[in-house]
Amino acid sequence: MDGVDRREFLVSSLFALSSAALGGAATILAQQLPASAGPGATELIDDLVAANRILALEGIVDAFGHVSVRHNRDPNRFFLSRSLAPALVTAADLIEYDLESNAVDANGRAQYSERFIHAEIYKVRPDVRSVVHAHAPSVVPFGVTSVPLRPVSHMAAFIGDSVPIFDIRKTAGMTDMLVKDAARGRALAQALGNKPAVLMRGHGITVVGPALPFSVGRSIYLEANARIQLQAMALGGPVAYLDPAEAQQVMASGENRSYERAWELWKRKAQGR
Amino acid sequence: MDGVDRREFLVSSLFALSSAALGGAATILAQQLPASAGPGATELIDDLVAANRILALEGIVDAFGHVSVRHNRDPNRFFLSRSLAPALVTAADLIEYDLESNAVDANGRAQYSERFIHAEIYKVRPDVRSVVHAHAPSVVPFGVTSVPLRPVSHMAAFIGDSVPIFDIRKTAGMTDMLVKDAARGRALAQALGNKPAVLMRGHGITVVGPALPFSVGRSIYLEANARIQLQAMALGGPVAYLDPAEAQQVMASGENRSYERAWELWKRKAQGR
Amino acid sequence: MDGVDRREFLVSSLFALSSAALGGAATILAQQLPASAGPGATELIDDLVAANRILALEGIVDAFGHVSVRHNRDPNRFFLSRSLAPALVTAADLIEYDLESNAVDANGRAQYSERFIHAEIYKVRPDVRSVVHAHAPSVVPFGVTSVPLRPVSHMAAFIGDSVPIFDIRKTAGMTDMLVKDAARGRALAQALGNKPAVLMRGHGITVVGPALPFSVGRSIYLEANARIQLQAMALGGPVAYLDPAEAQQVMASGENRSYERAWELWKRKAQGR
Amino acid sequence: MDGVDRREFLVSSLFALSSAALGGAATILAQQLPASAGPGATELIDDLVAANRILALEGIVDAFGHVSVRHNRDPNRFFLSRSLAPALVTAADLIEYDLESNAVDANGRAQYSERFIHAEIYKVRPDVRSVVHAHAPSVVPFGVTSVPLRPVSHMAAFIGDSVPIFDIRKTAGMTDMLVKDAARGRALAQALGNKPAVLMRGHGITVVGPALPFSVGRSIYLEANARIQLQAMALGGPVAYLDPAEAQQVMASGENRSYERAWELWKRKAQGR
Repeated sequence: MDGVDRREFLVSSLFALSSAALGGAATILAQQLPASAGPGATELIDDLVAANRILALEGIVDAFGHVSVRHNRDPNRFFLSRSLAPALVTAADLIEYDLESNAVDANGRAQYSERFIHAEIYKVRPDVRSVVHAHAPSVVPFGVTSVPLRPVSHMAAFIGDSVPIFDIRKTAGMTDMLVKDAARGRALAQALGNKPAVLMRGHGITVVGPALPFSVGRSIYLEANARIQLQAMALGGPVAYLDPAEAQQVMASGENRSYERAWELWKRKAQGR
Repeated sequence: MDGVDRREFLVSSLFALSSAALGGAATILAQQLPASAGPGATELIDDLVAANRILALEGIVDAFGHVSVRHNRDPNRFFLSRSLAPALVTAADLIEYDLESNAVDANGRAQYSERFIHAEIYKVRPDVRSVVHAHAPSVVPFGVTSVPLRPVSHMAAFIGDSVPIFDIRKTAGMTDMLVKDAARGRALAQALGNKPAVLMRGHGITVVGPALPFSVGRSIYLEANARIQLQAMALGGPVAYLDPAEAQQVMASGENRSYERAWELWKRKAQGR
Repeated sequence: MDGVDRREFLVSSLFALSSAALGGAATILAQQLPASAGPGATELIDDLVAANRILALEGIVDAFGHVSVRHNRDPNRFFLSRSLAPALVTAADLIEYDLESNAVDANGRAQYSERFIHAEIYKVRPDVRSVVHAHAPSVVPFGVTSVPLRPVSHMAAFIGDSVPIFDIRKTAGMTDMLVKDAARGRALAQALGNKPAVLMRGHGITVVGPALPFSVGRSIYLEANARIQLQAMALGGPVAYLDPAEAQQVMASGENRSYERAWELWKRKAQGR
Repeated sequence: MDGVDRREFLVSSLFALSSAALGGAATILAQQLPASAGPGATELIDDLVAANRILALEGIVDAFGHVSVRHNRDPNRFFLSRSLAPALVTAADLIEYDLESNAVDANGRAQYSERFIHAEIYKVRPDVRSVVHAHAPSVVPFGVTSVPLRPVSHMAAFIGDSVPIFDIRKTAGMTDMLVKDAARGRALAQALGNKPAVLMRGHGITVVGPALPFSVGRSIYLEANARIQLQAMALGGPVAYLDPAEAQQVMASGENRSYERAWELWKRKAQGR
C-alpha cells in the first residue's frame, strides 16, 4: 500500500497564496521546485501509460502499486503517476520527479507516498531505467517464509540463484510498512543491491529493469514463477531449479527476447486493440 | 446463504386488505411499520449500489451475500437490498430498515432472511456504518479449522492479531446455519465484539467498517490475505505475520489510504466505465 | 467425455430409404421410434438452454458434459441436446428422448453417447426432474482418492454425510470409461441411489435435482465445496464439517432458497443481459 | 521462451542486394531457399490461425509458445507463424518451412528460434501432422520433480502410463534452455519417442497429434490433468490413476470424440463468434 501526502499540495497552495499576497517571497518558494527536463518522448510516455494498464490486466497490481520510467532527456528525472489506481492512469496523470522525490509539476495533485522507492533506486542504479512496485499475490508468501524464491522456469532466469528480501523492521523498527521517506527508500535500494528484484516482507515486490518491458515482464514472470514453484514444492521431493549457469546463459542469450514479442501483445491488450 | 421470508409481505398484504375492508383497523397496522427517516443521500445510495456490484465483480459474493449502509439522516435506520443477487441490485431495490430488522417500505418485496446480521450489529456498534455478509471462498477454510487467520500482508493489517470465529452451534444448537432471527444476530454481534470482521463456521464472513469503502475493502483484502496465508503455510516452516505493533501502525497511518484510491477504481469498474 | 453414435442416424436414414423404396415396411420401422409427448413448455425449454450456458459460464462443463430435464407433459420423456458443446446449445438443438435413450426426433443429428446416464436415472428416480453430467475439475480429485467429499459450506448441505463414488471398473471391468449403454447407466443409477450426486472415478460427476435450478445449483456448489475442502485440508488439522443434523436442517429450510435468487442471476448472465 | 534469429533476414537482404548488384550470383543464393509446395488448404490455414488463438484463450500459451501444422500438399513442408505472440497470429503471419527449418518465404520476417522443435519431430514422426510448444504453467512442476504426470481424468487418457521428460542438460550441457538448433531439436524428438507429449525440464511442453484438434486438445487436457493430479496428491493417500488398459480403450474408442465437439466450440470462441 502506498499512502499519499499533501506536501506538494501545501507548497503549491502556499505558492498561490504567496503570489497573491507576498509578491517577491513567492519567487523564493518557486525556486525550490526542481526544474523540468522538458516533456518525455511520446513513445516513452505511451509505454508508461501502457505499463500501468498491463500490470493491472496481468494481476500484478490491483488498486495499489505503481510503475515509473527514467526521463529520456535527463537521468536525474523520472515519470510516475499521481496517486491513482494503475488501471486508470493516462498521460495527463504523470508527474515528473527529481531523484529527491520532489515533483516538478504536481500542481496540487495527490502523490504516491512510496515514490521514494523509485527515486532512491534510480539514484544508486544507473543501469535501471524503470521500477515497478506491486503486491504480487503469489510472491508475498516467499517474503514471509524462509523458502527462497528460485527459478523453476527459464522465463524467470533473471532470478539467478535467488532474490533478496527486504524486511523494513531491520532498519526502521515497527512501522506502518510503507517506504514513505528517503531513509526507507535507501534501505530498500540497499537490500535490492545489484539484483533485478527484491521481495518486501509482508508487503510485496520491487522490480527493476533497463527499460519498461523488462521491469514489467520480470514482474509478470516473477509472479508466474512463484505460482509454479509453490506447486512444484507441493508435489513433494526435491525440485530441479535452473542451474545458475543456465540462468546466466538465458540472460546472455537475450532474456526472453528482450520481452519484445510479449510487449507487443501486452501493449495491444492494454490499449484494447 | 440467506433465506427470505414473507412477513413484511403478509403485513402489507393484510394492510391492503384492511384498507379496503376494515377501515380504522388499517391505521393501527400501519402504525406498526417504522417511520422512514427520509431518502438517503444520493451519493450514499450510489455507493451502496456500487458496493453490491463491486463485491460480485471481486468474487466476494456470488448470487448470495449482501451489504448494507447506515442511513445518513438517522443512525437507527439502514439500507439493504430486497432479496436479490448483489450483481443485480439497483437503487430501486433498496429497502430502509430500522434496528429491529423491520422494513419501512418493503411493499411486499421479498427480504433477505439474514437482515438480522446487519441490524444487530448496528445496534451495538455505533462506530459501524456499513456491514458486509459474504461466503468469501478462501476465508471459509479458516472458519472450519483451528488455524487462525492472521495478516501476511499489510493490506490486511485490520486483522490485527486475528479475527474471531462465530459458531452458531454454540448458542443455537443444530440449525439451518442462517442468522435469521434477532437472537442469532445478537450472538453474531457478540462474537464480532469490537473487531472489524468475524468468520462464520461453515458459512462465511461478516465484515464491518466506518463507511462502505472500508467494509467492502476489508472484505476484499480478507479474502486476498486468506489466499496468501494458505500458500505461505503450504511452503512449510514458520510464517512471519505482521507484528501487532505493525498492524496497529498501518491502521493509525490511515488503513490503506482509507481505500480512496481503490474505491475510485472499483466504483468505475462496477459502473462499467 | 461422451462419445456419440449414429444409431439413430442409421435408423432414420433407413427410414428415409424405406419410405421411398419399401413402402409398407417403412411403417413398421417408423413405429419403432418412440412417440413424442408434444413440445415442451416454453419456460422449460428456455431454462434448459440457459442451464447449458450457465454450466459453461461457471466452469462446471467445458466442451463436454450435458444437462437434461424431464418433459413437463410426460414423465417418460426428457430433453437433452444433440451432441454439442453446452455453451453452443440452442432450443433447436434439443432432442426428446424416451427412458430407453431412444430419440423421438433425432433427424440424423449426432447424439451424446452418454445419454444413458440421464435415461437410467429418470427411470428409477421419479423425484428427479433434471440431471447434469460434468467433468467438474475440483471434484475429480475426490473421485480418485479415499478422501470423502463432505460439506464445509452450508451451500453444499445437500451433500449430507457424503456422496457415493461410481467406479465403472467394478461392474464393467476395463472400459473406455464412458457410460454409453443401458447396463452402465443402470450401474451408475444404482451407485447414485437416493442421493443428489455421485462422483465418477477418473471421470466426473452426475448430479440430480427436482428441477433445473437444483441440478445446476448443486453442480456449482459441489465444485465450490470441493475447492474449499481441499484448501481446508491443506491447512492441516481436523476440519469441522457440517453436522449431518445441520445439513438436514438446511435442506428442510429450503436448500439455498430453492436456488431462486441464484437462478435469476445465472439466467441473466447466460442470456447476456 | 523462444528466441529469434535473423538468418533468413540476412539471406533475403543479401538476395535483394545481389539481385541489384551481382546478377547471376543471386540465382545461386535463390536456389538455396527451399521450394514452396504451394499454398495451404484454406481450412488448414484457418485452423492453424484458430489454433494459435485457442491456445492463448485457454491459457496454454502466453506471449510465447507456438503451434504448427504439416502442409496438406507435401509432408516435407509445414506452416508456423513468424515470431509473434500466438494471440496475434493471422494467416499473413504464417511461414512455410522445410524439414531443415528453412523458411520458404520468410521475406525478412523474424522467426521463432525454436522452430527446430517442429521440423525435427515432423522428420521422424510421419504420423504427426501438428506440433504445439508451450509453457503450460501447471505442467511445468511435473518437469522439475520426480513425480510422474499420470492420467487422473479420462480426458487425458492419451498420457497412457506417463509422458517422458526432456532434460536439455543431458545432451547439450549448460545452455540457454532453448531448442534453437537442429541438434537440440533431434534430442527433443528422441526424448518424445512415439509418445503424444514430452515435458521439458524448467521450460514447458511439446505436444503432437495427427491433426490440429489433437495437438491443441491434448495440450489443453494435459494442463487440466496436471492441475487435477496436483490437487489429488494434495489430499494425501494413494491416487487411483487410469489403468493403462482403460487409457488404451479410451484411445481405441476415439480419444475424446476426436476433439470434434471441442474444436467447434474453441474455434468459435477464437473467432469471437
